[in-house]
Parts: sequence; C-alpha cells; structure tokens
Amino acid sequence: MSKSHGRKSRRHHLTRRAPPGAPPGTLIADPEAAPSHVRVMSYGPHELREKEAEEPSSLPGYLEKWPVTWVNVTGLGDLKTVRQIGESFGLHMLALEDVVNVHQRSKVEHYGTYDFIVSRAARRSERLETGQVSLFLGKNFVITFLEQEEPLLEPVRERLRKGSAQVRSGGPDYLAYAILDALLDSYFPLLEDLGERLELLEDEVVLRPGPAVVARIHEAKRDLLTIRRAVWPQRDALGILYRDPSTLVAAETRLFLRDCYDHTVQIVDLIETYREMASGMMDVYLSSVSNRMNEVMKVLTIIATIFIPLSFIASLYGMNFNTEASRWNMPELGWRYGYLFALGVMALMAGGMLLYFRRKGWLGAQAAAPPSDSEPMD
Amino acid sequence: MSKSHGRKSRRHHLTRRAPPGAPPGTLIADPEAAPSHVRVMSYGPHELREKEAEEPSSLPGYLEKWPVTWVNVTGLGDLKTVRQIGESFGLHMLALEDVVNVHQRSKVEHYGTYDFIVSRAARRSERLETGQVSLFLGKNFVITFLEQEEPLLEPVRERLRKGSAQVRSGGPDYLAYAILDALLDSYFPLLEDLGERLELLEDEVVLRPGPAVVARIHEAKRDLLTIRRAVWPQRDALGILYRDPSTLVAAETRLFLRDCYDHTVQIVDLIETYREMASGMMDVYLSSVSNRMNEVMKVLTIIATIFIPLSFIASLYGMNFNTEASRWNMPELGWRYGYLFALGVMALMAGGMLLYFRRKGWLGAQAAAPPSDSEPMD
Amino acid sequence: MSKSHGRKSRRHHLTRRAPPGAPPGTLIADPEAAPSHVRVMSYGPHELREKEAEEPSSLPGYLEKWPVTWVNVTGLGDLKTVRQIGESFGLHMLALEDVVNVHQRSKVEHYGTYDFIVSRAARRSERLETGQVSLFLGKNFVITFLEQEEPLLEPVRERLRKGSAQVRSGGPDYLAYAILDALLDSYFPLLEDLGERLELLEDEVVLRPGPAVVARIHEAKRDLLTIRRAVWPQRDALGILYRDPSTLVAAETRLFLRDCYDHTVQIVDLIETYREMASGMMDVYLSSVSNRMNEVMKVLTIIATIFIPLSFIASLYGMNFNTEASRWNMPELGWRYGYLFALGVMALMAGGMLLYFRRKGWLGAQAAAPPSDSEPMD
Amino acid sequence: MSKSHGRKSRRHHLTRRAPPGAPPGTLIADPEAAPSHVRVMSYGPHELREKEAEEPSSLPGYLEKWPVTWVNVTGLGDLKTVRQIGESFGLHMLALEDVVNVHQRSKVEHYGTYDFIVSRAARRSERLETGQVSLFLGKNFVITFLEQEEPLLEPVRERLRKGSAQVRSGGPDYLAYAILDALLDSYFPLLEDLGERLELLEDEVVLRPGPAVVARIHEAKRDLLTIRRAVWPQRDALGILYRDPSTLVAAETRLFLRDCYDHTVQIVDLIETYREMASGMMDVYLSSVSNRMNEVMKVLTIIATIFIPLSFIASLYGMNFNTEASRWNMPELGWRYGYLFALGVMALMAGGMLLYFRRKGWLGAQAAAPPSDSEPMD
Amino acid sequence: MSKSHGRKSRRHHLTRRAPPGAPPGTLIADPEAAPSHVRVMSYGPHELREKEAEEPSSLPGYLEKWPVTWVNVTGLGDLKTVRQIGESFGLHMLALEDVVNVHQRSKVEHYGTYDFIVSRAARRSERLETGQVSLFLGKNFVITFLEQEEPLLEPVRERLRKGSAQVRSGGPDYLAYAILDALLDSYFPLLEDLGERLELLEDEVVLRPGPAVVARIHEAKRDLLTIRRAVWPQRDALGILYRDPSTLVAAETRLFLRDCYDHTVQIVDLIETYREMASGMMDVYLSSVSNRMNEVMKVLTIIATIFIPLSFIASLYGMNFNTEASRWNMPELGWRYGYLFALGVMALMAGGMLLYFRRKGWLGAQAAAPPSDSEPMD
Repeated sequence: MSKSHGRKSRRHHLTRRAPPGAPPGTLIADPEAAPSHVRVMSYGPHELREKEAEEPSSLPGYLEKWPVTWVNVTGLGDLKTVRQIGESFGLHMLALEDVVNVHQRSKVEHYGTYDFIVSRAARRSERLETGQVSLFLGKNFVITFLEQEEPLLEPVRERLRKGSAQVRSGGPDYLAYAILDALLDSYFPLLEDLGERLELLEDEVVLRPGPAVVARIHEAKRDLLTIRRAVWPQRDALGILYRDPSTLVAAETRLFLRDCYDHTVQIVDLIETYREMASGMMDVYLSSVSNRMNEVMKVLTIIATIFIPLSFIASLYGMNFNTEASRWNMPELGWRYGYLFALGVMALMAGGMLLYFRRKGWLGAQAAAPPSDSEPMD
Repeated sequence: MSKSHGRKSRRHHLTRRAPPGAPPGTLIADPEAAPSHVRVMSYGPHELREKEAEEPSSLPGYLEKWPVTWVNVTGLGDLKTVRQIGESFGLHMLALEDVVNVHQRSKVEHYGTYDFIVSRAARRSERLETGQVSLFLGKNFVITFLEQEEPLLEPVRERLRKGSAQVRSGGPDYLAYAILDALLDSYFPLLEDLGERLELLEDEVVLRPGPAVVARIHEAKRDLLTIRRAVWPQRDALGILYRDPSTLVAAETRLFLRDCYDHTVQIVDLIETYREMASGMMDVYLSSVSNRMNEVMKVLTIIATIFIPLSFIASLYGMNFNTEASRWNMPELGWRYGYLFALGVMALMAGGMLLYFRRKGWLGAQAAAPPSDSEPMD
Repeated sequence: MSKSHGRKSRRHHLTRRAPPGAPPGTLIADPEAAPSHVRVMSYGPHELREKEAEEPSSLPGYLEKWPVTWVNVTGLGDLKTVRQIGESFGLHMLALEDVVNVHQRSKVEHYGTYDFIVSRAARRSERLETGQVSLFLGKNFVITFLEQEEPLLEPVRERLRKGSAQVRSGGPDYLAYAILDALLDSYFPLLEDLGERLELLEDEVVLRPGPAVVARIHEAKRDLLTIRRAVWPQRDALGILYRDPSTLVAAETRLFLRDCYDHTVQIVDLIETYREMASGMMDVYLSSVSNRMNEVMKVLTIIATIFIPLSFIASLYGMNFNTEASRWNMPELGWRYGYLFALGVMALMAGGMLLYFRRKGWLGAQAAAPPSDSEPMD
Repeated sequence: MSKSHGRKSRRHHLTRRAPPGAPPGTLIADPEAAPSHVRVMSYGPHELREKEAEEPSSLPGYLEKWPVTWVNVTGLGDLKTVRQIGESFGLHMLALEDVVNVHQRSKVEHYGTYDFIVSRAARRSERLETGQVSLFLGKNFVITFLEQEEPLLEPVRERLRKGSAQVRSGGPDYLAYAILDALLDSYFPLLEDLGERLELLEDEVVLRPGPAVVARIHEAKRDLLTIRRAVWPQRDALGILYRDPSTLVAAETRLFLRDCYDHTVQIVDLIETYREMASGMMDVYLSSVSNRMNEVMKVLTIIATIFIPLSFIASLYGMNFNTEASRWNMPELGWRYGYLFALGVMALMAGGMLLYFRRKGWLGAQAAAPPSDSEPMD
Repeated sequence: MSKSHGRKSRRHHLTRRAPPGAPPGTLIADPEAAPSHVRVMSYGPHELREKEAEEPSSLPGYLEKWPVTWVNVTGLGDLKTVRQIGESFGLHMLALEDVVNVHQRSKVEHYGTYDFIVSRAARRSERLETGQVSLFLGKNFVITFLEQEEPLLEPVRERLRKGSAQVRSGGPDYLAYAILDALLDSYFPLLEDLGERLELLEDEVVLRPGPAVVARIHEAKRDLLTIRRAVWPQRDALGILYRDPSTLVAAETRLFLRDCYDHTVQIVDLIETYREMASGMMDVYLSSVSNRMNEVMKVLTIIATIFIPLSFIASLYGMNFNTEASRWNMPELGWRYGYLFALGVMALMAGGMLLYFRRKGWLGAQAAAPPSDSEPMD
C-alpha cells in the first residue's frame, strides 16, 4: 500500500495541468490539496500586527496602512481564495495557474509592478520530495502560497516579531530574501545525510559488494537527482534576481541575495561531487564483483583440471577387460608395482598441473594463503 | 506486415526532399498524403464566421472584411491548393517547400510581413511519432497546415466560437499562441505514461531482470529520444518568438508565449530526468545480472570442487589391480577398516573444502540460508 | 589489394601538406590527382555561353563581357592551371594552397573582394568518403575547384541552360548557393541508407547477436563519424555566410542560404539521433550477450550439480573393497535392498537439488519450457 | 578510531551553517576550532613593524600610520575577536559568516571599499584536504583569517622583512597577490605526488591487476576530485580579480594576478589529464581482468572437454554387466585387443578435440607455449 | 634503466617551479638543461647578417641598425644569459620565469610594447613529448628560447637567407608567424603515424583481440592526449593572436595567422576523430572478447552436459552390489540385453540433449560448422 502511494505522489511531479485545450489561466484544484488558510503579518520599523485566518476580501486594506504586508496562504485546495487574492493584488492569471499547479521549476518572472518567484523546498516523507513555494514580491507586499505548513518559515516570523532593526526596516525585498534563504536551509541536512550515506557505502562496496549495496547507491543517486532538479534552476533564478536591475530589490538586499545565490552554487557543487563519488563506487563495485568471479573461477579451474585427469586414470584401471582372455588386456593390473605405477603417474600429472598454475601466477593469489590474502577484500 | 509499415513510416522522418539538384521551392507531394481540405474561421471581437471546404481562390476576400482570419489546411496531398494559398498570401516558396516536406525541426523564420513557425505534435500510433504543423502568422491572418486532422485544435475552435473576450479580441498572435499551446499539450499525457512505465521498470529490473526488461527500457529510451528531438528545437523556437521584438507579436501575448516556452523547458527537464533514470536502470540491470551469474558460478564451484576430489578417491578404489598378484597392489582393499578409512578421507576432504569456502565468505551468501537470503533479489 | 588501397585513400584525409618548413602558399600536386580540365559558363538574364576546355589565360576576358562567369576546374593535377587562374582573379596564395590540399574542413574566409568557401560532398566508393569542393565567390564570378567530376553539379548547369528567371538573374551569390545546396544533397541518400541499416541492425541485435552485428554497428558509427566531420563545420560555415553582412551576398539570397543552413542543422540533428541509436544498440547487444551467457551457465550448473553428486555415489559403490575380508567393508553391497537404497539416495539428492533450483528461480526461466520461453530472444 | 575521525573531518566539508532559520550573519564557532591569535605586520617602503598577539581594539590605529597593514588571524575559535575586527574595518556580516563557516568555495566578492576573497590551500593530513583562507583587501590593509597556522605564508613574511623594493612598495594588492600565490603553491607537490602514483599504477594495472590496484586508482581519483573542487572555482575567482577594473588592484599587480590565474589554469589542465589517465587505467584493468578470466576458462574447457569423454569411455568398460549371462553383454571385454581398442578410441577422441581447439585458435595462445606467452602480461 | 628515465622526464611535465614561497620571477635552472647558445639574424629587405654565438650584451646594438632582429637562444641552462637578454629588451620577469620553467601551456600574453607567445612543438624520443618554444614579438625584434636545437626552424632560416621578398620585407610579425607555423608542422607526421597505427589496430582488434592490442590502443590514446594537451591551448592562443587588434601584427600577417589557426583547428578535429575511433575500438574489443568467452563456455557446456549424465549411467552399472545376495541388486547386469539397454538409454539421453541445444540455437553457431563459421572472427 505504501508503495502505491509513493508511486502516486511521484507521478504528480509530472503534470496535472488543466485538461488539454483548456484556456490559459484555468485553475484546477488538486483533489488532495489541503484547504486554504490565510495568515497576514503587516509591519513597519516600529509596529507589527499579525492576524490568523483573515478574509481575502479585507487584504487590500492592509496595503494602505502598513509599509510591508506579508500574506501567507497555506493549502491550495480552495481556488476561490486564490482567485480573490489574485484579483485584489492584480496578479496575472498565468502566474496563478503556476501557483496552483505545484510542479513548476524554480524561476523568476517579472510582471511589471511585481515579481513572481517560484522556489522549491525539500522534505523527506517516504522518499525525498520537493514542495513548491510561490512568492509574489510587490512594492509593499509579499504573498506566499504553500502546499502545506512549512516549519522553516516559523523562524522568519519569529525574527519579525522580535523586531530586529534590519528585518523590520528592510522592506518586502528583504522579507522575500529571508523566506527564500529559509527554504534553502531545507537542503543542507538532507545533503549532510546523503554525504554520510555515501561514505558508509564507500566502505560497504568493498567489504560487502552485493545487490543491496547497488540498490542503495541507486537510491542515493535518485535522491541526488531530485535535489539537483530542484536546486539547479533555483540557482539560475537567484542569479537573475540578484543581478537584475529591478526597482523592487534594493542594493543592500542584493548583497543578501548574492549570499543566497552562493549557497545554491555550493549545493550544486556538492551534488556534482556526490554524483562523481556514486559513479566511482559503481566502478569499484563492478571491478570487485568481476574480481570475485575471477577468483571463484580460478578455484574451480584448479580443482577441476587437477582431478579430472586423475579420475580418468583411475577410471581407466577400473575397466573390466578380461585379463585372462588376452595378454593385451590391461596387463598393468597384474604387475607387481602396477598400483604404485598408477599412483605415480597421477602424482606426476598433479605436480605438472600445479607447476603450470604456479607459472601462470594463479596460485599465489589465493591458494597459497587463502585466509590472509582474501582479507583486504573480505 | 505491421513491422514493415512501421519501418516505412519511420524512414520518412529522414528526407523525402525534392530529387537531388531540383531547384529550391520544388513542391513534391508525399504519395501517401491525405487530400487537402480547407476550413476558414474569421472573427472579430463581436462576430465569427466559419466555413468548411472553402475554395483557395476566395481566401483573399476574407482579409479585407475580418480582423482575424484563420485558414486551416488539413492534408497535404493536393499541391495545387498549397500553391494557390501560397500565392494568395504571398508566402515564400522555401517556406511552402518546408510545409510539404513534413520532416522539419521546429523553428521560427521571419519573412518580413509574416512569420513562419514549424511545430510538432506527438501522437501514438504504432509507435510514438510526431507530426508537423506549419503555421504562418501575418498581420491579420493565421494559416495552419496539418498532415492530418488534429483533435487538439478542436478546443481552440470551441473557445473561439464561445467568444470569450480574450480569445476573440486577441489578434492573430494570440490565436497562434493558443494553437502552439494546444499542440504542446499532446506531450503531457505521453510523458505521464512514460513516467509510469519507467517506475514499473524500476521495480522489474530488480525483481525480474531479463532481456524483456532491457527491451522495454530500450523502447522507453527511444520514445524519450523521439520526444526530445521534437521538443528541444521547439523550446528554442518559442524562446526566439517571445524574446524577438517583432511587430507581429503584442507585448501582452509575449507573456503567454513565455508561459508556453516555460512548458517546453519543463518537458525538456523531465526528459533529461527520465533519461538519467533509464541509464541508471541499465546499471542496476547489469549489476543484477552479473550478481546472478556470480551466484550461479559459486554454486557450481562449491558442488564441483567438493565432489570432484571425492569421486576421484572413489574411482581410485574402483581400480581392478590384482591384489593377489602383488602385495603392493591396493592392499587397502583388504584392510579390515579399509572402507571406513576411505570414507573418512572423503569426509575430511569435504570438510576442509567447506571450511575454505566459509573462510572465503562464499557460503554465507547463499548456501546457508538460500530462500531467505535470496528474497531481497527474487 | 583493395584493402591496402582503402587504407591509403584514407590516410590522405590527414595531411599531405607541403614538406615541413616550406613557405606558405607552396602548391604541391597530389601525384594521384586527375589532370585539370577548365569549363566556363558565362551568362546574363537573357544569354548564356558555355565553353569546354578553355585556356586559363583567356578567362579575364569573360569578366568584362558577362554579368556572371562560372569557371569550373575539375581535377587538381595540373598546378600550372591552378596558379594561372589564381593570378588572373587575384586569389590569395593561402587560399590556393587550401584548394590543392584537399583535406580542409568546410569554412568561409573573407578576402576583401571575394569569399573563399570550402565545402565537402559525400560519395560512396569503397567506403564512405567526402571530397572537397573549393569555391571562390566574387562580384561577378564564381570559381569552383573539384577533385573529380561531380554529377551533382549537372542539374545546376541544366537549370542555367534552361534559363529560369531566378537562376539567370540571380547573380554569382545565387549561383554559389545553388552549388552549395546541390552538394549538400549528396548526404541525404546516404543518411537514408544509414537509417535503414540501423533499423535492420536494431532487429538483428536482438535476434542474432554476434560479432557480425557488432562489426556492422561499428561500421555504421564510422560512417556517421565521417558525415559528421564533414557537415558539422559546414553548418558553421553556412551560418557565417547567411548572417555576415558581406556585400557579396544579396538579401534575397540570404533567405536561400538560411534554408541551406537549415538543411545542415537537420543533418546534424539526424546524425546525433543515429549515434544515440547506435550506442543504445551496443547496450542491448551487451545485455543480450550477457543474458545468453547466463543461460548457458545455468544449464551447465544445473546438469553438473545434479549429476556430479550422483556419480560420486555410484563411484562409491564401484569401489572394490573386499567385502569378505571384513564385515566393515561395504556391507551395503550385500544388503537385500542395497541397490534400491542407493538409487533412493540418488533420487533424494536429485530431488533436493531441483527443489533448491526452483526456489532460486533458475528453472522457471529456461528448463521448464525451453522452446516457448526462448522465443522472444531467438 | 582513526577511521571515524577521517569521516568526521570530511562531513564538515558540507555544512555547519547556522541553525536553519537563523538570521543572516549569525556567527557560530566550530567547537573544534583553534583559539584565535592576531598578528600584525605594518610596513611602508622603508620601514616595517611586526607585532605578535595584538589586541583587536588597537588595530584601527595602524591604518593611519602605515601605508600597508596586514592583520593575520590564525584560529577561528574566538568569535569575539572576529566580530571586533569586523567592526573595526567595517566588514559586512555576510562576509564574516563565510569567514567562520570554513567550507566556502573560492570566490571574489566586491563590497564597495574592500574585496572579500576566499581561497583554499591543500594539505595532506590523513587524507588530502583543503583549508579555507579568507582575505579582505582594502585600500591600505589586508586581513587574512586562517583555520590553523599555515607554513606557506612564512616565506611571504620573510620577503617583507627582507624588504625587497617590489614587495614593500607594492601596496596591499601586491601583498594579497603574494599570499594567494603562496597558497596556490600548496597544490604543486601534491600534484607531483599524484602524477608519480598514477605512473606507478599504470604499470601495476598491467602487471598485477587486482582489487588493491582498483582501490588505489579510486583513491587517486578522489584526491583529484578534492583538488579540482578547490582549484576550479579558484581559477574563476582569479580570472575575475585580474580582469575586473576595481580601483583596489593596480595595473602592475594585474600582471602578477594573471600569472597566478595562469597557474590555476595549468593545475586544472593537469587534473583533467590525470583524470583521463585514471579512466584509461580502469579500461585497461577491466580488459586485463576479462582477458585473464578468458584464459582461465579456456584452460578449464580444454582439460574438461578432453577428459570428460575419455572418462566416460573408461566408465563404460567399468560396468559390471555379466558377460557370461549373455553374449550381448559387453563382448569387448573378452576381445583379444579389447583394451587396445578402447585406448585407441580414447586417443582418437582426444586427438580430434585437440585438432578442433587448434582450429579455433585456442591452443596457440597459452597451451602451446605457456611460460613465454604469458610473460608480456605477467 | 630506460624505463626510469622515461618516468623521470615525464614527471617534469608537472612542475619544477621555484620552491614554494619564492618571490615571483625567481629563475631556477633545470639541472638537466643544455647550456645556452645565442644566435642572431638581423635583416632588412635587401640585406641579412647572421652571427653564431653572440654575446648577450651586444644585442641592443642590433635593434638600431636593422629593421628586424631575430635572437634565438638554444638551451636554457645558463640563467645569466636569459637574465641579460631580459634586461636588454625590457622583458617582464614573470615572462622570463615562464621561459625557464618549460612546462607552460601555449598562450599569448600582451605586455604593452611586446607580446609573449608560448608554443609547443612535438618530438618523438622514447615516447611522444612536446617541448616549449617561448617567443617574444616586439616592434623590431623576435626572440625565441628553445629547450634544445629545433631542426624545424632551419628551413625558416634558409628562406630568410634566400631572401624571398615576402619573408624579408614582412617584419617581425611575419617572422613570428613563420616560426609558429614551422613548429606546428611537427604535429602532422605524428598524426599521420597515429592514423596508420589506429587503422592497423582496427583490423587487429577483430583478428587478434588480446592484451597486446589493448596496450597499443591505450598507448595511442595517451599519445593523442599529449598532442591534444599541446594543441588545444595553441588553437586558442592563435585565435587570440589573429583577432586581437594589437598594433604589433599587420593586417596582411593576420591572414597568415588565420591560416595557422586553421591548421590547429584541423589538428584538434582530427584528434577528436581519432579519439572516437579508439573508443569505438575498445567497444569492439570488449564485445569480441565476451563473444569468444561465450563460445568457449558453450563448448564446455555442450560437452559437459552431454557426457556427465552418460558417465553417471556408466558409473551406476559399475557398482559392485552383490547380484547374488538378492534379486533386487542390479538385476539389469544379468539381463540378456542389459548392456544394449544401457547403451540405448545413453544414446537417448545424448540425443535429447543435442535436440535441446539445437532448439536453443547453440549448435548452429559453432559446433555444426566450426571452421567456416569461425573464420570471420579468426
């Protein structure tokens, strides 16, 4: 059951667009989306007001009274709310469509009087996933749309409430930065975890090469792919944001966005390193497996090629030709030293084989000192 | 038979240009092309007229009377019709050659007073294929040439008929956008299907690695290649279209084209992810196969190396040396405990071998607990 | 013998430059080059004159009398002719060196009053090869140098003779386009052929994997490489030619060159697709081979591991211990049901092995239903 | 124990950022960081003063008196010191955060009146690691923050003390160059060592292919990866520094920075070469292993296929059918030349097999001349 | 001994910089470098003077008297000479450091009144190597520093002596071009040789796959890598030189430099083709080896699976159960047709196996017609 759920939740990554041919800007609610909940924080350098569960219709009133208003919508199941907010703030219907259709790549789009920013935050439920956070940055407002409650934003609110000078007097551009930076923080513990998993695997692949290790390497690669898919466009988006001479972002905030951009560069860099590590591991794994196969084959070959000829000699003298019927029939059987002669032939053959194997260098590797030699690999 | 058809229809992807050395603009009808059928829709903000099966000669009359005229030609078998439309609207012969030769990459070409846009829509007949849609965008007209009836365009027509303000007053550039966006919608269900196939394969490759799985991975890769070949240039073409300061596209429409461009970026991104998934699967497959081979070899080696020496001993005492002819001839046969001695030697040899295998770690993996151990893989 | 010839003709691809240290512009005739043959066509909108086997010295006379003069030199064995033409038209010695040294990459070089264009046409002799066509485009002339007679240019001459308005009044730039386009046509039948070969191989690699298939895939890859080496720089050269604001190319001709450029883009695109197909085939081949190996090994293992222990038991009771010498010596031989007991032990061992193999899933794959199962692969 | 330490120290590479959601510029000391130690050198063309263990509060005094002041902080455990220096010189809190969080990529950031440069120096402790050196370059000061004492900087100090004209009158930009160049010197001995290891491995992989060689190739690749991760961004940073028209860097110093940039290009170039060497080695290794496996299999096959049929014949005549019970029961046993006949059949079979193997070309490779033939590989 | 020498000479490729921390511009002579030898050629359109073994101190005198002076220093063991020339011509110490440290990548550096150009020429001693040629191009001089006597430059001198108009009146920029072009000529014979080696290997890899072939492919790849490392940056350097609007290079000379640049593009193009050929060969090799392994395994399996059961039957009837002790003990031994019955059972088993193998398609490939079938591979 959990499996089918996992599959379902991933398929969503793909599309859930409006039905083919629908006009642009058609909003389609995800039937599994949580109900919408609107929370407003408005503040200036000296004051802050916070209201849970505000009505969308009363939002425009805030803009006149407060330097900065942050409207946060959690849960995208209630299309009416989304549409109402879109109308109140004059948001483009294409942007709203992207808000509801939560499988966008990270991006920054300029719409004249406001910027539309899509970011993705990582979370680990059954498997590693990323959730979409849509952000509108206007002259005196920030609107965020979240698929579900995002604990990473709570510290941002806390800093606003505590009212440090910087965060309160920073304008909506600084608030947008603070939110984007907080979301980016979701990737670091995951990468730390991935790094540890890869280091463990690096030992395992030598000590216990097997399908379980391969499956875990494969899983790590898939997680890296998921993070890369989310962070790579985020890097580009942040690069655009901090370089673009838009009037919505103050020069001072640009420094902070550059720092944020720097973090995405670091993540991408780390992901590439991890990917190379994982690829290198597969090489080690394959060579380790082929080496073991080789060793197995050598043991088989040595045993078989020594004993098969010996067995043949033994079978030979096990034949029942009637020695009495003719003196040509296996006279060796009646020799005084017939048995010893046969044993001697066998010993010579075995010795010859061993000499041949030694020359080939097959014995040195594992027959001579099996336990000690195999230790570095086992 | 169906096979040869499939091969034939694919070979077309390649060329069917005019014979080598023909002058440029030579139109050659594909002998399998459907007969042409001309349908006209002309409209303004308040009115719309639709006519099936119009004569090409009467088309110029529309341009004077209506703000926007959409001429749709389905089937490219009737070169006279194509040529007549080309002359009526002053289309360049090189563009018309590309209209008839339906294996163009997506592109946008500026011809002064009109733009020539080639797009490709996916369809799944026997295998995944893409069909060409050629579109001319003029000051007050849109002309589309289709290889065959395209159901994806019906919703666009329906929206025109219903007459929503946006679509009716949007001009030919908006109409062109609506058509291109509708064609792009053909890729999403196919990608969703591919995503599901790949997820199934991801399980299969571990549970039932075999040539059937490889064939299906290969097929998925080929489908991805087909989609990529179609969408990659489409992305570039749309990027050109929404950025180019051509007077044919209004600023408002640019936003919609950017959204459309964004969809192609998403598709390309998804394709790359799927390609990496498919490559990773081949790795898992190969390691899974080599692991099974290894296991098979180990079983063979263990059985053979234990029993071959034992059999040798048994053969030895099966020899018929005449014990009566000499006391050196196999005196063991007459010993009181000769048989038990032989059995003891065999038991010692088998035990030594088992000990050696245990030290090598060959037994732990599958001999000790074969059913439970092999479960994660089987 | 044919082999050594093939090798020789390919080595030429590499160099045959002037001896190291020779001054630039040193012309060295290829000892195998055909004797030179000069053919002149001069024309205006209303008239055309054609002369076979003209003397190089009389060429400048044409330029004064005719709007366009096309000098075509076939065979580069006669350096005096090349040098004379170079002097008559004021061509740079570096360009002439490239004309004679027929292993240039496609390129466009501006020399003030004329452009020097190198193009390559494909031909299939023993193996796929490309031949160099050097073209000088001046204000009122086109000069082409060919290694050998090129049948692709005959249709261009025919169109000039028939005197369609476009081709006759088009100027030397249009003529240059017509020649370049005709040469490009040489690639399409080869690619069509390659596409068919690859589709056949795609079936073969599954049905009859073997070294012959690999050799043919390898050959197809080499042909693709040869075409790519020729067309890739041709694409860049045509891109430069149609975008460069040189006064030698009229605006109208640019449209035609863009079309020609578009064809090279298509060819390159197709080559990349074919290369991915060929790479995918190698993957399928390798997995197919390793799968067959696996199957072979399983059959061997099953047979050997079942019968080796049985044979051991049989050998055991074939030993000749003297049952009369001691009651400990193989008393089973004298038991009433000794033989049946031995057979029973064997049956039990075989049954246990089969059960083990069934649990491992080794039997289901090919022992149970060998003909039907192996069909999808055979 | 040493293992867990190695793992721990590498995990650090990843993150240790401030806790998620902390405001930007939050300084968190690494609990393992060394205590801070401040050392000041201030100099002009004719004079130099050096002070160990200066108080951070007295630093601003230097700026007024001396043309150039170099503040060097070793050990980042004392956040108060870092913060005080930051305030004294007006350093941005984001830069200070990067100083303390020692896992930054190399970079150059312009902060108006000063540049912030991050560089990494290599050191080999247990495994190859890189340590961060943060450098602030102002109009009349250079501040460096080091994780631990860096012996590479001592020669720079020595040159300052000796007071060569260039280094003393060069300004802070020249000092910054001298420091960056000295740090870059840490990579050259490591690369020289890597080059030697790879050359040794190149021989070993042919002479003694085995898991130990693979492990060492893998290790070399990991070291290359570590160096590349450090130097690649350093190259970009130096490229920015020497090209940027910042007023902080004099034209003369640019030449030196270009030289420094050139060294990073050389290192990156060398790393790529080494990586290709390492990849090529893995190919040689795999083909060497598969070749050995092949040889092992051939020996087994030749021995087994020759003796298995012979043994069968021998077993045949070892059957105990009662020749007296019927004249159809193994009459050969009583033939006069029965034994010789059996031996003859065996000889014929063995000869036929050998002939078959010779035709297949299996014997030439190792059975005919085993010691001499195997030498090139052994 | 020769081996250790080869290793030593390659290690040099890496570094031999000044000791870590040395001031920039520190000249360190390679202890193995040849003693320096200065040769001067100075010339104008009508006159030329040549002097062997000139004193560095007298060089400035030439500049006043002659339009062009070419100072050639062979051997870099005499640092005093290098330093003196550097002072006489005002060369930057960083450039001189690069002159002495002969492991630079090709590059062009502008130093105001002169350009510093590093180029590399190939030579084959024990293995393929490249040597550095440093060139300073000034308003009226060219200075070249060579590691050892370079025979490629002799023809350039010869052309100067003969005094063709172009070379004598061409200025120092033309002389620099002539030198660079002559050095580039060193690569063509090596590439021709490599091409021939690869073509031979292409046949060998099919006819005689083995470790010797792999070693030679690997060697070819290493040589390609060496050439690529030298030519790739040379291409960039020449590209910079012919495009840069430096006043040191006349417009006419730019055409020649473009031609030279073109040659590097050709070399790089050829190297890439060769690299793809070499990679393709490894694929063919691996599939060839795995195919042979497969064939070996099939022979073993067929022989073993046919004879092992037969031998079991034979062993069965070789058991010594006492037929007289009980009528259940191997009554077959006493049957009238017991022997024929046993032979019949064996024939049936062998026949069944052969039928099974035929169905599997294992026999067609090599058992039915071994010599003819194996010919395409052998």
